[in-house]
Parts: sequence; structure tokens; C-alpha cells
Amino acid sequence: MEHSWEKIDTYAKEWVTEAGKKIKESFSTELLIQSKSNPNDLVTNMDKEVEQFLIGKIKEVFPTHRILGEEGYGEKVESTEGVIWVIDPIDGTMNFVHQQRNFAISVGIFEEGVGQIGLIYDVVHDEMYHARRGQGAYMNDIHLPKLKPVPIEEAIVGLNATWVTENKRIDPTVLGPLVRRVRGTRSYGSAAVELAYVAAGRLDAYITMRLAPWDFAAGMILVHEVGGTVTSLDGKPLSILENSSVFIGNSMLHEQVQKEYIQNR
Amino acid sequence: MEHSWEKIDTYAKEWVTEAGKKIKESFSTELLIQSKSNPNDLVTNMDKEVEQFLIGKIKEVFPTHRILGEEGYGEKVESTEGVIWVIDPIDGTMNFVHQQRNFAISVGIFEEGVGQIGLIYDVVHDEMYHARRGQGAYMNDIHLPKLKPVPIEEAIVGLNATWVTENKRIDPTVLGPLVRRVRGTRSYGSAAVELAYVAAGRLDAYITMRLAPWDFAAGMILVHEVGGTVTSLDGKPLSILENSSVFIGNSMLHEQVQKEYIQNR
Repeated sequence: MEHSWEKIDTYAKEWVTEAGKKIKESFSTELLIQSKSNPNDLVTNMDKEVEQFLIGKIKEVFPTHRILGEEGYGEKVESTEGVIWVIDPIDGTMNFVHQQRNFAISVGIFEEGVGQIGLIYDVVHDEMYHARRGQGAYMNDIHLPKLKPVPIEEAIVGLNATWVTENKRIDPTVLGPLVRRVRGTRSYGSAAVELAYVAAGRLDAYITMRLAPWDFAAGMILVHEVGGTVTSLDGKPLSILENSSVFIGNSMLHEQVQKEYIQNR
Repeated sequence: MEHSWEKIDTYAKEWVTEAGKKIKESFSTELLIQSKSNPNDLVTNMDKEVEQFLIGKIKEVFPTHRILGEEGYGEKVESTEGVIWVIDPIDGTMNFVHQQRNFAISVGIFEEGVGQIGLIYDVVHDEMYHARRGQGAYMNDIHLPKLKPVPIEEAIVGLNATWVTENKRIDPTVLGPLVRRVRGTRSYGSAAVELAYVAAGRLDAYITMRLAPWDFAAGMILVHEVGGTVTSLDGKPLSILENSSVFIGNSMLHEQVQKEYIQNR
């Protein structure tokens, strides 16, 4: 089937921008107070509202496309057939409630499982990260250059403290030595924001032990377009049908970390 | 000696704002490229330039005040006598170079060792955090409310992965159990930004094992004004004459963490 990716792209950007406006409008002083007395309700409401808004638009204009969304208003998607939109209306829920920043709308659009369009919108900072397969990645109107090689010692890596302390998913001694060797680690609490940072060269890699497809769908397309490597921690390809650990970053760094810290374990 | 704190405050804000403009002006596309080929030089230049600018202004208007600055253009300060400005021209150097965000200008003004004015300017996001002793804290024109009690399980804590992996300063098993218990940890790579976040209620605490006085001087005044607790990790008061570990945050949380994770070790 032939699609007009130009048209899909134009609509996707328009709808994500509009969804961002809805979120911004929710930041009245009153809402802030409400969020503090009952944080989880607020987030659920905005999450739901934004996801339903996006799904409504997609279904209207592209009725044959399927939708996989965090809030579950999409359909049950069990194959990668056709065009699939993978949506996280607010990635970084906890930040949205506690900080009213460091969250993003994340939309990845795939055809037969291959990422075609990635959109991450950091609403509060008004930064729209955007990539189309084979056409490069942008932050607003700024073209994002290909990632340059960086040695481990000079790398800044997105990595939460959880993964180097006792936890259910990884022996803390696997990544501990990496933390000691890199120039620094950061943790922002939103996979979409962190992946956009990797695409923009602000982080050299991002490592986490468990994400859902809507957390990484847009980011993997963005990072792929700037020449980065996108896999699970143990180097396998990511699928939009499965939760996975994620190791996304600068290709040279990725290869070196894989070799020295992951495969030799 | 009687000081016009009103006057000092007005000038301090004006100069920090102006310093922020200088930093913003350095973000031309060209400078960005330069920063990537030779990151440390750029930072040194801007750090130095901003510190010298601030010192020049202070010396001109307040010749009797002393200055303690990260770049060392201030004087050797060995007592807390009189009025002392404690300056970090760019707190979050690594972020400044790699990200052009998540850094801040930090200025704390003390009299006989007691914090009187705290200013943290997140230049890129144009957020000026400001506190005067006894008069509350502000972010731009928004009054920052007193911090509300938060249980450990609901807390978001600024804590870098370094402190829960093998390191020179703390046994990683001290804070590891805290990381597992809190709602989440974050790490932004700038003490000033993280302390401003605590003051604004975006983080509930910030813990780090080694800061210089210019890293925490302004932040401690801000957090004090919103009713937070400001100590070293083991609960001792901070002094602007000494490097220290830092544990700054919500008072209830601070007390509970002190009791359960620090004092019982």
C-alpha cells in the first residue's frame, strides 16, 4: 500500500502541537494546587484526554491506521502489519505532576514494524523533536547533526540510580563500573525526554531496564536518524510489540559498552 | 554595621540578570560548534568572564564586601566576618558545554556567616529564584509556598547514581535502600538547579557527597526560606568556609531519612 508520508507527517505534527496546547492550558494556578492534593487523578485525566484527542484525529483522517497507546484507548495490537501509531500522551507522568516540566508527548509511526516518523514534544520548553526515516532529525527548525564518536570517559549517560542498586531487573555490579568510568550520569525521569536528549547530543546514551513500546517508539526513530544505535541492553532489536530494556546511544559508545560491560558478563 | 539590604538585593538581581544575558549571547550557532571541538576552554572563558563581571560590579558599588568565587578571582576568605558574596558564575559546567541547559548562575550573600540573599538564575529557562532572609522565596514573580510534609514513599529525591555505586565518599549500601524506597530519583548535574528545584517543590530533597560553598550558598538560603532543612549528610550545619556533603530538603523527610538511613549506620 502506498501512503502519503508527507500528509501523515503534517497532520501528526499539527495534532501533537495542539495536544501540547491542551496540556499547557491545564497549568493554571488552580490546577497546580489540585495536582498536589490528588496527583494521580490529575495525571490520569490529562493523559486520557490527550490520548483520546489524538486517537480521535487519527481515526478521522486515517481510518485504516492502528493505534497503540499507553492509556489503552487504542486497539490490541499483536502484529506489526500496516501503519501503527504508537502514542504516549504524557511520558514522564511523575514529572508532570511534581514538576510541571521534564515530560513530553511521544508519537512514533511505523509501517510494517519499521519506524517512519518520530515526534517528541517537550511541551513546557516548546521543543519539538521530529524525524522522518531517511530525512534526518530536527529540533524545531534546527537540523540535528549525526552523533560524533565519544569515548566512554567523556560520555554523559542517562542512567537512574535504581539500576546500580539492588533491583529486580539487573545485578547492580553490571553497570556500576560504567557509572564510575563515564564523565557523568543524569536522570530526568522521562524516557522520551532522555531519548530526545540523545538525539540532540545532550546525552551520549540512555540505559534503562524496562520500557513499554510507547516510551521508546518515537525516540528510537529520532536516534536512528542521527546515526545512533538502538537496541535492548543485550544488543537485540527493539519491537513495538514488546516491553524491553533499552540501550540507545552514540554508536561507538554503544559498541564499546556492549563489549566491555554487557557481553563479557 | 548597618547595610541597606534592599539596595544590595536590587543590585544583585540586576547584575545576575545581566550576567545571564552575556551567557545567552554566547549561544550562537558558531559558539555551539566551538564548544564541541574544545569544551573545556569555552567553559573556562565564560566562567571567568561572568565571575569577573560580577566581581567588578560588586567591588565598584560595595567596596567593603568580600567575594568568594569558584574561579578564584575573589579573595582568600578565611572568616565569615562582614558581608560575603559567594559566587558560582556557571554551576553545572558540564551541562553548559554538553547541553546548553541545566546550569545556573548562583549567588549567595551572607553577613557574619548568615545567609541574607540567595539568587539562582536558570538562564536558559529564564527562571530567577530569589530569597531574602525572613521574606520568603520567589521564582520570578511567583511566591514559593512553604514545603509540605512528604512521606519517604512519595518523595522524589535528587541523587546521582555515583553515590550508590562504589565511590570514595560513601558506602553504596547507605543510600541504596533509600533509592529503592522513594517514589523516584533524579539527577540534573547542577547543584544550584537541584536546590532551586527543592525550593520550588519539584524535588523533595537533594543529596550529594561533596560540594564547594559556591555550589550550595544560594540554594541553602532559598530552601531555608521555604522551611526546608539544610545540613551535611550527617546533619551538621553547612559553612561557607568549607566543602561538605549536602542533604537539603523537606524537613519531615530530612528528619526521617536522618533517623532511618544515616544515624543508625
